Amino acid sequence: MTVSPFDHPLLSALLGDDEASRHFSVEAEIEAMLAFERALAEAEAENGIITRDAAAAIAAALATFQPDTALLRAAVAKDGVMVPELVRQIRAAVGEPHGEKVHFGATSQDVIDTGLVLRLKSVVEHLGLLLTETIIRLISLEERFGGRALTGMTRMQPAIPIHIADRIAAWRAPLERHQERLSGQSGRLLVVQFGGAAGTLEKLGDKGPAVRAVLAAKLGLGDAPQWQSQRDALADFAGWLSLVTGSLGKFGQDIGLMAQGGSEIELSGGGGSSAMPHKQNPVKAEALVALARFNATQLSAMHQSLVHEQERSGAAWTLEWLLLPQMVVATAASLRLAAELAAQVESLGH
Amino acid sequence: MTVSPFDHPLLSALLGDDEASRHFSVEAEIEAMLAFERALAEAEAENGIITRDAAAAIAAALATFQPDTALLRAAVAKDGVMVPELVRQIRAAVGEPHGEKVHFGATSQDVIDTGLVLRLKSVVEHLGLLLTETIIRLISLEERFGGRALTGMTRMQPAIPIHIADRIAAWRAPLERHQERLSGQSGRLLVVQFGGAAGTLEKLGDKGPAVRAVLAAKLGLGDAPQWQSQRDALADFAGWLSLVTGSLGKFGQDIGLMAQGGSEIELSGGGGSSAMPHKQNPVKAEALVALARFNATQLSAMHQSLVHEQERSGAAWTLEWLLLPQMVVATAASLRLAAELAAQVESLGH
Amino acid sequence: MTVSPFDHPLLSALLGDDEASRHFSVEAEIEAMLAFERALAEAEAENGIITRDAAAAIAAALATFQPDTALLRAAVAKDGVMVPELVRQIRAAVGEPHGEKVHFGATSQDVIDTGLVLRLKSVVEHLGLLLTETIIRLISLEERFGGRALTGMTRMQPAIPIHIADRIAAWRAPLERHQERLSGQSGRLLVVQFGGAAGTLEKLGDKGPAVRAVLAAKLGLGDAPQWQSQRDALADFAGWLSLVTGSLGKFGQDIGLMAQGGSEIELSGGGGSSAMPHKQNPVKAEALVALARFNATQLSAMHQSLVHEQERSGAAWTLEWLLLPQMVVATAASLRLAAELAAQVESLGH
Amino acid sequence: MTVSPFDHPLLSALLGDDEASRHFSVEAEIEAMLAFERALAEAEAENGIITRDAAAAIAAALATFQPDTALLRAAVAKDGVMVPELVRQIRAAVGEPHGEKVHFGATSQDVIDTGLVLRLKSVVEHLGLLLTETIIRLISLEERFGGRALTGMTRMQPAIPIHIADRIAAWRAPLERHQERLSGQSGRLLVVQFGGAAGTLEKLGDKGPAVRAVLAAKLGLGDAPQWQSQRDALADFAGWLSLVTGSLGKFGQDIGLMAQGGSEIELSGGGGSSAMPHKQNPVKAEALVALARFNATQLSAMHQSLVHEQERSGAAWTLEWLLLPQMVVATAASLRLAAELAAQVESLGH
Repeated sequence: MTVSPFDHPLLSALLGDDEASRHFSVEAEIEAMLAFERALAEAEAENGIITRDAAAAIAAALATFQPDTALLRAAVAKDGVMVPELVRQIRAAVGEPHGEKVHFGATSQDVIDTGLVLRLKSVVEHLGLLLTETIIRLISLEERFGGRALTGMTRMQPAIPIHIADRIAAWRAPLERHQERLSGQSGRLLVVQFGGAAGTLEKLGDKGPAVRAVLAAKLGLGDAPQWQSQRDALADFAGWLSLVTGSLGKFGQDIGLMAQGGSEIELSGGGGSSAMPHKQNPVKAEALVALARFNATQLSAMHQSLVHEQERSGAAWTLEWLLLPQMVVATAASLRLAAELAAQVESLGH
Repeated sequence: MTVSPFDHPLLSALLGDDEASRHFSVEAEIEAMLAFERALAEAEAENGIITRDAAAAIAAALATFQPDTALLRAAVAKDGVMVPELVRQIRAAVGEPHGEKVHFGATSQDVIDTGLVLRLKSVVEHLGLLLTETIIRLISLEERFGGRALTGMTRMQPAIPIHIADRIAAWRAPLERHQERLSGQSGRLLVVQFGGAAGTLEKLGDKGPAVRAVLAAKLGLGDAPQWQSQRDALADFAGWLSLVTGSLGKFGQDIGLMAQGGSEIELSGGGGSSAMPHKQNPVKAEALVALARFNATQLSAMHQSLVHEQERSGAAWTLEWLLLPQMVVATAASLRLAAELAAQVESLGH
Repeated sequence: MTVSPFDHPLLSALLGDDEASRHFSVEAEIEAMLAFERALAEAEAENGIITRDAAAAIAAALATFQPDTALLRAAVAKDGVMVPELVRQIRAAVGEPHGEKVHFGATSQDVIDTGLVLRLKSVVEHLGLLLTETIIRLISLEERFGGRALTGMTRMQPAIPIHIADRIAAWRAPLERHQERLSGQSGRLLVVQFGGAAGTLEKLGDKGPAVRAVLAAKLGLGDAPQWQSQRDALADFAGWLSLVTGSLGKFGQDIGLMAQGGSEIELSGGGGSSAMPHKQNPVKAEALVALARFNATQLSAMHQSLVHEQERSGAAWTLEWLLLPQMVVATAASLRLAAELAAQVESLGH
Repeated sequence: MTVSPFDHPLLSALLGDDEASRHFSVEAEIEAMLAFERALAEAEAENGIITRDAAAAIAAALATFQPDTALLRAAVAKDGVMVPELVRQIRAAVGEPHGEKVHFGATSQDVIDTGLVLRLKSVVEHLGLLLTETIIRLISLEERFGGRALTGMTRMQPAIPIHIADRIAAWRAPLERHQERLSGQSGRLLVVQFGGAAGTLEKLGDKGPAVRAVLAAKLGLGDAPQWQSQRDALADFAGWLSLVTGSLGKFGQDIGLMAQGGSEIELSGGGGSSAMPHKQNPVKAEALVALARFNATQLSAMHQSLVHEQERSGAAWTLEWLLLPQMVVATAASLRLAAELAAQVESLGH
């Protein structure tokens, strides 16, 4: 099915990003969940919560575990999450006597949230690389054309002469601040989620924090108290995604306006029309504007989901699932398109 | 790829709707586009714009046409739309001498927008049936439990005794108004889009309106002047979708609050927990709230896309693609879940 | 205080509308509330719920009643609504023995919601007149310049020659549909709200519907069952407001793009710059775009407030207050600006 | 006029904040603008752009300058900004021969944006204090009731026993992270805006950066290159505001749910009902939820305004004015209400 253009076999060529999407496949999600369950068993064994034999049996079973996805699908319809059924399947794979130690002390949200963060870690790296690439392309444009003249436009009116470097600086500088912002916030984002049924790790006695720290270390994540109902790091990251697409939307809008006619810009490639073969539509520039407005909209709902009632909310949590993966892919696509668009520029200014 | 839960092999079991999604598959979209091209050729032949031989050749070729989707995908990346490449492929399939008459006088947006409306016609029928079904389920609840007592809650505080029928009426009455609204607006929504390169059907001389009327009739749509940059009917329909999910979100929220504890409601089935086998989470009720907040958010961007510059905007148009299909599926899923949830109610009130 | 530009002594000259704002003053609100209380007393007397003497005493007291607004302000801080304190003051003004019959059987939400609808009735008339005026101005432009030539622009690229009439039609036609939509929905909007503590008019025995019908008639509103937790008519009206501003935002955007340079448009008047005296900024056109994007955003939260829990929700209801008045004024300002902008057009096309 | 509850003489008692609102009065805005013009004259004199006599004359005139606000209002309607008229008035007050040196090299946006940042500096301090106060109140609750028992609720169902301290930690911890975030981002926010007509300070020759640095220092702001079309710091700050209200919305929602009945919480004070004198509505808790959803919505449009075309955009800039002041006041009100609500708690848990 292809309801979202990010998943659409054709439209994703323009609006999607394969590498970012890959992290939101079922396979990637389950792989991350299995990594959580293995690391949890090992961390619990190191802390004497379960035996080392149990942990070894769990790790062995997970190494070859293949989920029955039809049953997982049915479970989602019934339970709202796949985890109870997934755990049941893993326990069956581990068998007696260690099966019951799988997922010990954890809850569905621990697996799903940590599984998300594990993939966001890769996402953050990917977006960081794309962001650097886009900045480099803009610097290259500045080097090639920065000294040329351009009529500065204010309030959509010709104002005074400026240089191409002035306009490019307004495209580039926000992106450099976004790099700073990402490194500032990723420490709060890339942390383990482990709280158990209601956030208190009640089954681990006084070993909860110790297990959590080992779990985090094994997964390559930061350690932090559980945040089952505290979604600020995700909302903040969504804000970062939308800052990036917003800044690139400004770049796209400017390119679209420069390409309206006249000789301010020359672009290679570019979009054909079924009615007017002479046209060359600034397709990537338009897509940057669309993706900016899309993310600006989704961000609103990520903040709505901060109103996350009590210890864990099904409604607010489910809402995030409808938003964050698409925001990530929109941002990756936007960065990719911006870099490609910059590379299409044959000439800027006079 | 499965970035959106509506497309996700597992999550769509809860949050998706197969029948609604089906209308947004590539196959359904291309089928609708081919129907447009055939009807256009026939309408143009009837008006003497192209020959009857040309129309017959086009219809014959379309009957067996199979697109090369790899080329379509590449075209989307380059042109922002698949239509120029699709038309090229159809023309090649028709061959000399009639191939060039394919898509005569039309533009990409005509094919894509009319192709969307054709599918929205089926969507409107599907949603109308689901809406009726949900209303019937609520009436049934009212018949079974309407006379029972309930403590009316205002501002989240116990207020005075009311009857179950009072609360159910507040769930049902908005849905009945939504039925009225849909019949009021669908006449404006389900109309053909045919304007040519810039809305003037300049290649059809004075035959433009006549061709358009026949085209509409052949497709089973209403006739209307082109609306390439006038997106109010789509935004209004998006508003209707969000009114429906909003009303059902209130139903879900109420069920969730009734199910908090105590004996106001008994639900069969319901969600399991990986940490607490004793729990029965009101999963469908929560999903209704999430889908309501999702659509309320998307609606904002559908209205942003009303700012559609000049004769046709790539940015505002592309933005719609990112929103409307998901809003439709969210609404269908919400109606399905509401009907299922109503059917799970074993007891209401005292 | 002047946090909102709609209330700002200076900025409201551009972004506000005096006539629309007038309906949201404290005076207008209290006047509408007093009208409700008087009509309620009379309707209850006609139905034998209170004596005719009581109704007469209430009407007499209301005729000269002046609220103590300092106490009302304190009450809002404490109760979230001014009504309990306002009713207390009115009862004191009526005095013994009839004071206790003031507001009999009603709840705060009845007074506030009906008070809102009473003012929306005037708002709808005002907006309807402004909408007609704007349409007339566009028709006048079409008559003056419709036959002139213009380069049709698609995807921000020069496409083919069109006429000014073609572009104006794309500005005008949606506004005409908005006229239709308003008359279609105003019957559902302009209805009385009367439900009592939890929507059941429990203090009126079997006379509830009869009292409500008379109350509605006396206030010049339609009669309808209570809608305390059913906010669809308000959300639908908000959607209409945003459709209007969205369509005018497209008009503004187009004017801004035409005014970028060249000779497609000549505007009289227009905005000065503190840095560049030669410039003439298309200020009203820009404001139309800003107001369109503002309303598109607010609409989202009006739909969020459809998730209105149980019999009456304080949170969802309060949210509406933060949105709807501003949406109304934004729409009135947008219509006013659009009419003024159309009147500034000295020349269009070639 | 009182279109916004933040400006409303009665509703602002609940939903507003006097101290925050004060910074958005006309007086505060003009005072900040005059501070900019004085500091600019002095910075330019120090760099030899204007004479010291001119700077002294400007400073002297500004010390007693009183604007004609009626003319400013008329100017906003015509120019979209008050600055050209304000500068004209100041120049007249300075008189010959130095009047023309007022505002030398600056543009309207420099004055308005820097004037905003000057006030945001005070706002940031105010919000920081309120945030600390709220955290202290929550710590106090934790000290008083932290050891008591509570039934942890997950997915709106009773889960397992937890302690009051567990729930309070979920209210407090995000607020502490918001403190960190604010100090992380305020360096990027609290910087001068000075770019001249199109961002290049073209009238200052090679002295532009030096003048800007002195200007910033005199105003107590950070120095940074102009950001006329780079609105990321404002959008990021808006995100912070919405993170704060979102976290407090969760607190409000939880309090509302605890107060539904039973004995989990006792609140002093609280809202009266006009229909049911026995009720005590959790008014402040509800307002927290409303303000959270309000800000989450406005945030979307702050990100829409990142698509700020060319050197300076009237539309995107005007949109910010409709959003940011209200978001600030909503946040201040939310923090105030949260602290008050915490102080109303007489008992928590068992």
